[in-house]
Amino acid sequence: MLLCDIGNTSFHFYDDTQGRDYREDAAAFDPAGVTLPVYYINVNASLQSRLEMLENWTDLRPCINWHDYYATMGIDRVAACEAVEEGVIVDAGSAITVDVVRGGRFQGGFIYPGVSALAETYHRISPRLDSSFNFDMQLDKMPKNTRDAISYGALGLLAKEVSGYGLPVYLTGGDASLLMPLFSTPNYEPLLLFSGMKKIIQKAGLC
Amino acid sequence: MLLCDIGNTSFHFYDDTQGRDYREDAAAFDPAGVTLPVYYINVNASLQSRLEMLENWTDLRPCINWHDYYATMGIDRVAACEAVEEGVIVDAGSAITVDVVRGGRFQGGFIYPGVSALAETYHRISPRLDSSFNFDMQLDKMPKNTRDAISYGALGLLAKEVSGYGLPVYLTGGDASLLMPLFSTPNYEPLLLFSGMKKIIQKAGLC
Repeated sequence: MLLCDIGNTSFHFYDDTQGRDYREDAAAFDPAGVTLPVYYINVNASLQSRLEMLENWTDLRPCINWHDYYATMGIDRVAACEAVEEGVIVDAGSAITVDVVRGGRFQGGFIYPGVSALAETYHRISPRLDSSFNFDMQLDKMPKNTRDAISYGALGLLAKEVSGYGLPVYLTGGDASLLMPLFSTPNYEPLLLFSGMKKIIQKAGLC
Repeated sequence: MLLCDIGNTSFHFYDDTQGRDYREDAAAFDPAGVTLPVYYINVNASLQSRLEMLENWTDLRPCINWHDYYATMGIDRVAACEAVEEGVIVDAGSAITVDVVRGGRFQGGFIYPGVSALAETYHRISPRLDSSFNFDMQLDKMPKNTRDAISYGALGLLAKEVSGYGLPVYLTGGDASLLMPLFSTPNYEPLLLFSGMKKIIQKAGLC
């Protein structure tokens, strides 16, 4: 069985039999070339009609109990929430989504700009704010230099909010490893969405 | 006496005798046309050499006791801190600077993107995140819709951090009024920097 998390820039596959994941470029990859059965989630609207024409590609969207979520919530966030019984999920990509799950139920979440988007934002405001982030900043001390003042503004507030829930922290997404130093005992889970997809498949009795 | 806070886009004047403030466009305004004595702070590097040639324009930078601050700190932030004995200053412009003062001493601060920069950032990440901010969001509830999820990420974390210091909140800068609903009892002080400049002048014995 293949699982696939489709975003705006890539098809992220997980081969459940071999236990390995790999990515294909969204612009160049032809999903019709895959012959194995694929269960997928997709946030890339421009690809949806092509995917629906392929018999071996099964969209997991209809299998989700949307009662626990909201209609416009990204299905990648939903899949991550399905993977966790108790915790706060930080999915760090072009945006950073933060979602809280207690007792297996989604409690709400928020959307923060991604690390690259934040760096670009400071650069655009002023060249004087063009500094690399210090991911090892001290969160219990107010900054007294420009680099820390920017780092604390960009990422310190986020780290404090996430830690403040008092729940296990799950980091996933392309920038997850960058954010590791901001948390005391984070769980680094690059394949978290695929765990959630497997649970959705099991709940729906698809396999 | 005229006070002037010079930024990248404008000369912001305060006429102390008449008690009124007004702005001039930085690109078009000629400071040599002013004949009254002017005390100024300036963060616009491209204007500094012209200002230094004008005898009636006095830079307040050398009058500041920099021991309490750090060398690369914006002088506008310093002036705001000088105005306050105890509190957190939120100066909302192209960037939002947040500075904490206790017992008349700067404790540290951070730099957050401004409201327009944040809106542009979400728009650039994805058109699906292109939503006006809800400044009346509830901060004690996790969001369960896209607009609130974005608003909470963009401004809720900032509001919680600022309120968390347990100090009086002073709002200044061009977007100060936008941020008002995020705080329970904020002090709206559009002329805060000029209060600070007057204190700097008095301390330095310039008048």
